[in-house]
Amino acid sequence: MSITEDVIEGARRARVAGRDLALATRATKDAALHAMADALLAREDEVVAANDDDVRRAEEGGTPANIIDRLRLTPDRIAGMAQGLRDVAGLPDPVGEVVRGGVLANGLELRQVRVPFGVVGMIYEARPNVTADAAGICLKSGNAVLLRGSSSARSSNAAIVAVLRDAVVGAGLPADVVQLVPGDTHDSVKALMRARGHVDVLIPRGGAGLIRSVVEESTVPVIETGVGNCHVYVDAAADLDKALAIVLNAKTHRTSVCNAAESLLVHEAVADAFLPRVVAALQEAGVTLHGDRVFGGYDGVVPATDDDWSTEYLSLDISARVVPDLDEALEHIRRWSSQHSDAIVTEDQAAARRFVAEVDSAAVLVNASTRFTDGGEFGFGAEIGISTQKLHARGPMGLPEMTSTKYVVVGDGHVR
Amino acid sequence: MSITEDVIEGARRARVAGRDLALATRATKDAALHAMADALLAREDEVVAANDDDVRRAEEGGTPANIIDRLRLTPDRIAGMAQGLRDVAGLPDPVGEVVRGGVLANGLELRQVRVPFGVVGMIYEARPNVTADAAGICLKSGNAVLLRGSSSARSSNAAIVAVLRDAVVGAGLPADVVQLVPGDTHDSVKALMRARGHVDVLIPRGGAGLIRSVVEESTVPVIETGVGNCHVYVDAAADLDKALAIVLNAKTHRTSVCNAAESLLVHEAVADAFLPRVVAALQEAGVTLHGDRVFGGYDGVVPATDDDWSTEYLSLDISARVVPDLDEALEHIRRWSSQHSDAIVTEDQAAARRFVAEVDSAAVLVNASTRFTDGGEFGFGAEIGISTQKLHARGPMGLPEMTSTKYVVVGDGHVR
Repeated sequence: MSITEDVIEGARRARVAGRDLALATRATKDAALHAMADALLAREDEVVAANDDDVRRAEEGGTPANIIDRLRLTPDRIAGMAQGLRDVAGLPDPVGEVVRGGVLANGLELRQVRVPFGVVGMIYEARPNVTADAAGICLKSGNAVLLRGSSSARSSNAAIVAVLRDAVVGAGLPADVVQLVPGDTHDSVKALMRARGHVDVLIPRGGAGLIRSVVEESTVPVIETGVGNCHVYVDAAADLDKALAIVLNAKTHRTSVCNAAESLLVHEAVADAFLPRVVAALQEAGVTLHGDRVFGGYDGVVPATDDDWSTEYLSLDISARVVPDLDEALEHIRRWSSQHSDAIVTEDQAAARRFVAEVDSAAVLVNASTRFTDGGEFGFGAEIGISTQKLHARGPMGLPEMTSTKYVVVGDGHVR
Repeated sequence: MSITEDVIEGARRARVAGRDLALATRATKDAALHAMADALLAREDEVVAANDDDVRRAEEGGTPANIIDRLRLTPDRIAGMAQGLRDVAGLPDPVGEVVRGGVLANGLELRQVRVPFGVVGMIYEARPNVTADAAGICLKSGNAVLLRGSSSARSSNAAIVAVLRDAVVGAGLPADVVQLVPGDTHDSVKALMRARGHVDVLIPRGGAGLIRSVVEESTVPVIETGVGNCHVYVDAAADLDKALAIVLNAKTHRTSVCNAAESLLVHEAVADAFLPRVVAALQEAGVTLHGDRVFGGYDGVVPATDDDWSTEYLSLDISARVVPDLDEALEHIRRWSSQHSDAIVTEDQAAARRFVAEVDSAAVLVNASTRFTDGGEFGFGAEIGISTQKLHARGPMGLPEMTSTKYVVVGDGHVR
């Protein structure tokens, strides 16, 4: 069988298995999630041994240490994956939730209820813990999942999925609700993208290149996630202490994530007071500033090009510019933002109101770090990714975002 | 300029104009909708004259009478379009609606609010009244719209859009929130499908061929609408009087619409009692039955092939089959339904419950005609189409379905 046939065949089995899962009660699904957690802990040695293979291969291939660190599974990290599955078990079941309902004038009862998508395809990179996270979230939301992890984590992913499938079966659900997509090459990604009718939704999680290629080539509906070129704008009316804390937090709290700040805009009215402080603080934290002419007047600031305004560094770098007014800040964000998360720091209600109304991003923040755009921080309990598209879901996606709806109409012989 | 450049240029102007529209108050938008209605009535002669051109051209080209009837605009139909715009003005504004919100444990205020998509592309066929309907719904939901009607209605659409744009400007909004996409050929459809980044959502309304081609070729996110291969299943425990009324209504009330029934399934336990009645009643209403072996035993019933099970006739035809049990009815619907609207007629609560749970369609109806799947019938007040996809919107789409959301996060210097 070709990889394409393999993928389609897997999707067919997922469709059939997904029907049982869609009808499973919350009790059954939660029991399966706890069984999955128990099994990961019980078979930790197996998973670690498989992961050792991946790590060894990566080391032999000269993979950078930070990537190897993301790839490595320790007993602690496996315990974290198990806890994640238990946390999902504790969340409300989105399936069957009545979104709206009532009785129409003619006596028809109308309800819009949440239902699973059916078959979800996940395409993701390095980190093998995503395998368990995605399996748990999809299972709870009633979706069968086809997991296509990176080839660098293939042994780890295979071991994790084998453990999870056994646990799922033990809990009385079909194994095929959790499947690893075969193939180490791009062919299996292509096959998923072309599996229209077999796969209901595709969720790419990873770098900008992966996401762009899926969005452009897929005939399966896609939920685009995660590229974040996030801005912090320090307004004329900013409290500069708050501004300094927010800029530092947004840039340096964790640099490799999509909600980290990548660009700093400062109103010229506060430039003289703020720039010396923010440049010193960022540089002390190890950040390289890529600045406009004004920022360029400070030691160690390198000149910014248009490339810098559009770059998601994911590193200890930030682009920085002084703007003459709020209009120019809004215009800059309109032009360069990836519409993920953009923040204003201001004590001026009118400026905050305009910023909130005019910045068209998944999250718009006032006097808060961009790092708060996160399913956990928002209280969703679980997050499968952060959507940067406008259709279906925007911003952090929890369990409800992993469902569709249907209308249930009940009458007593009603005709028009 | 090529048609592609023309379309992109129009989308750019729509993006800029849409920003003003997105910030417009409900009062401004409602005033614009009433002005649009007033203008259509005041300039009725202009619109009718333009429509006469389209009708004459269609007649000369030998277009069938029923298509010409759909194309024709009379003073009555123009009054209907105007009333439609006033009805939309009367509906609540979806923009700014707080979908959920609260205060997080750390004091951050979190709100998810509805925002317009931005720029919507509509691709639709014959009926020129869709031009005004779509313009009204998009305007109220804060979206700029690029309208790509059929070439057969080009003079009518141009006249309607000219009238609407003047009215929009009179109400203080930019004309470019309503635009007719140039070009009579498929090139402009192609250009819309490739305008990723310029057009936020594409909504095709029309025949299966149009929708399939847009869904398959578009890189712009699509909301798929309307193909309906709808089933009525008459259960063993059906009240046969209700069943007869529902089958007749679902098939014959209006045949050219997507929520008309195209397939009849009858449980064998009631076949002897029901078939003579339903065959006679349908045939008396002018319906041709395409039946399985059992239905084939009745005069005038033609034999059904697999093609019949998958066909959306949109005419006085229905496929008909006797099934041994509910399982087989569910299996048939799983295999052949277009997942638009499927109905069960039964007095058996367990059968109804299973049907509702297991049929994965946009609308699942119990003891009610499939014809009820409609924005108007559901009380939405306006409908831009009926989505048959699972992402974003499913079933009749009203104003809220024409929006995205964003998260607004307000703190007081909050950092992680």
